[in-house]
Amino acid sequence: MRMPVIAVTMGDPSGNGPELCIKAFVNGGFYGKAGLVFVGDLRVLENASKFPGMPAVRLHGISRVEDALFEKGTMDVLDLDIFDDISKLRIGCVDTLSGLAAFLSVKRTIALAMDGKVDATVTNALNKEAMNKALLETDGRYSDGKTHFDGHTEIYACYTGTRNYCMMLMHEGLRIGHVSTHCSLREACSRVKKDRVRDVIGLVDDALRRMGIPRPRIAVAGLNPHAGEHGLFGMEEIDEIIPAVEDARQAGIDAVGPLPPDSVFSEALGGLYDAVVAMYHDQGHIPLKTVGFVYDRDARAWKSVSGVNVTLGLPIIRTSVDHGTGFALAGKGVSSETSLVNAIDAAISFI
Amino acid sequence: MRMPVIAVTMGDPSGNGPELCIKAFVNGGFYGKAGLVFVGDLRVLENASKFPGMPAVRLHGISRVEDALFEKGTMDVLDLDIFDDISKLRIGCVDTLSGLAAFLSVKRTIALAMDGKVDATVTNALNKEAMNKALLETDGRYSDGKTHFDGHTEIYACYTGTRNYCMMLMHEGLRIGHVSTHCSLREACSRVKKDRVRDVIGLVDDALRRMGIPRPRIAVAGLNPHAGEHGLFGMEEIDEIIPAVEDARQAGIDAVGPLPPDSVFSEALGGLYDAVVAMYHDQGHIPLKTVGFVYDRDARAWKSVSGVNVTLGLPIIRTSVDHGTGFALAGKGVSSETSLVNAIDAAISFI
Repeated sequence: MRMPVIAVTMGDPSGNGPELCIKAFVNGGFYGKAGLVFVGDLRVLENASKFPGMPAVRLHGISRVEDALFEKGTMDVLDLDIFDDISKLRIGCVDTLSGLAAFLSVKRTIALAMDGKVDATVTNALNKEAMNKALLETDGRYSDGKTHFDGHTEIYACYTGTRNYCMMLMHEGLRIGHVSTHCSLREACSRVKKDRVRDVIGLVDDALRRMGIPRPRIAVAGLNPHAGEHGLFGMEEIDEIIPAVEDARQAGIDAVGPLPPDSVFSEALGGLYDAVVAMYHDQGHIPLKTVGFVYDRDARAWKSVSGVNVTLGLPIIRTSVDHGTGFALAGKGVSSETSLVNAIDAAISFI
Repeated sequence: MRMPVIAVTMGDPSGNGPELCIKAFVNGGFYGKAGLVFVGDLRVLENASKFPGMPAVRLHGISRVEDALFEKGTMDVLDLDIFDDISKLRIGCVDTLSGLAAFLSVKRTIALAMDGKVDATVTNALNKEAMNKALLETDGRYSDGKTHFDGHTEIYACYTGTRNYCMMLMHEGLRIGHVSTHCSLREACSRVKKDRVRDVIGLVDDALRRMGIPRPRIAVAGLNPHAGEHGLFGMEEIDEIIPAVEDARQAGIDAVGPLPPDSVFSEALGGLYDAVVAMYHDQGHIPLKTVGFVYDRDARAWKSVSGVNVTLGLPIIRTSVDHGTGFALAGKGVSSETSLVNAIDAAISFI
């Protein structure tokens, strides 16, 4: 069997993505298991390799996946050559050149997968403000006329021509599909519609079957406190979610709900469900990060940042870290690569 | 020092409140530490004492706190005499007679504290649908003309004449104040207003100082994903939350925020903050229950239900269980009394 090849985006160069790439490459144990190609900027990665406490690594710039060496200790970097002068790199803040670099890394990575050059893709974090400022300032000329993307997932949807997709977060036994992600909470309330909820239940069911669970048990959370308590606190459960769950059940999916959002994740952690469908970003992200993220007060840093983000419904495989760009930590060499290692491992498992 | 006296409501008689009262009384280790008076219905508690696996207890009906015996093994029940015939009790479902009983238990408990007959109050869960149906069907004649309460907290506010109050949940190191609780998520978005956020920061700061923390560090969560990412996903952070935090800081409160809602609770668990101000019910309830509630798949039941609910800003002390009425478990004698024991302990600590 040919060894799988995974493309990994560099993330926002002003954040901790570049240093995480190096730490995950050196410490992740991927040699002999998968070939990794890091898509970004060679100068930025060279710069990151000199941060305090970084492991030794040899960087190998390439312009095509075919030129990757996949040698132990040598990191293959598909160089987009954005930072002609590294003094332009501003670490730890929102910067439009970094935003553009992050976007181009994602766009190229998607193209590699769509062209069959790589078997799966993994993304580091980008800063949405920096990216969207960059797309607007450049009048969309690097982004096929588009000047705004809500986030990574929407970039993937656009460049793979996908309309029906959703974000799933995973950490140990917890798997959470999201009806909406990067929009205001008011807008998220409006996006709880029967058809969308039904689609997400189906996407989650399908993904879990691919992961080897023959008859996934899916819990569907309510939108409102206590799942609306029979209409007392909002009508979305009655008008949208219950019909979606009934429709899914008629199609043979073992879905239940809407369930009270504040206890369903404990039930899933206890093994009662294989996945939960969350109605909005923080409903799913809060329980996952409360379990997966561990903060160390004395070190004033994250001790553990676990969890993987998967986009369901795409024609290509995409997993991602589930943390942000870590501007406050960038350049210090102290950020944890656990989530990135987990994301690469998850991508390999989906091939 | 006189032993403190605590009034405990029975909760909805159709739920697991009555059996939890008995288990907490027998197993909680309160004898010699505090005198407990359970406010509810003697026949309902007699009935609950016969559920499978219940510990032995002697029930002593009283009509005034002054008649309580506070003897070991004897549970003093302030009998409101609602169920003249126990065959009227319907266990495990929404029932208006139970809703009325739950309401009257709370109302009487508040009166006992306001009259100085007890030093603190602790509430079991009520079912809001059952209660509000009961108040409507009886045209508010038991509730001073009111036919609707959002929940316990609003009943307390009404009968203590309190306007500025909030719900705080506590579990081990996690303390979470809430800007809103029992309303739809759309309505919760509208309730994120500078003055209210500022009030809640102040209530939480004050409570923590009373708990012996000289300069509490308070994290204020955003409303929107990523705390709005500088206005990209909603404007409430910029228009309402930032001004409230600035106002609190000018008053000498060590408040920071708005912070991304999906990582702030991990930071608080790691000891970075003494409390978090959450913008809506599930933003605060999800992380607390994800940590405090443990589900046992094999037993198909909650293994542990920890966490205490405190109402801040009242002239009397009120703590509460942080779980619901447990209709599915009621009558089986298997519900965990941990949260009720914790709530009574917390009430004692506030005296």
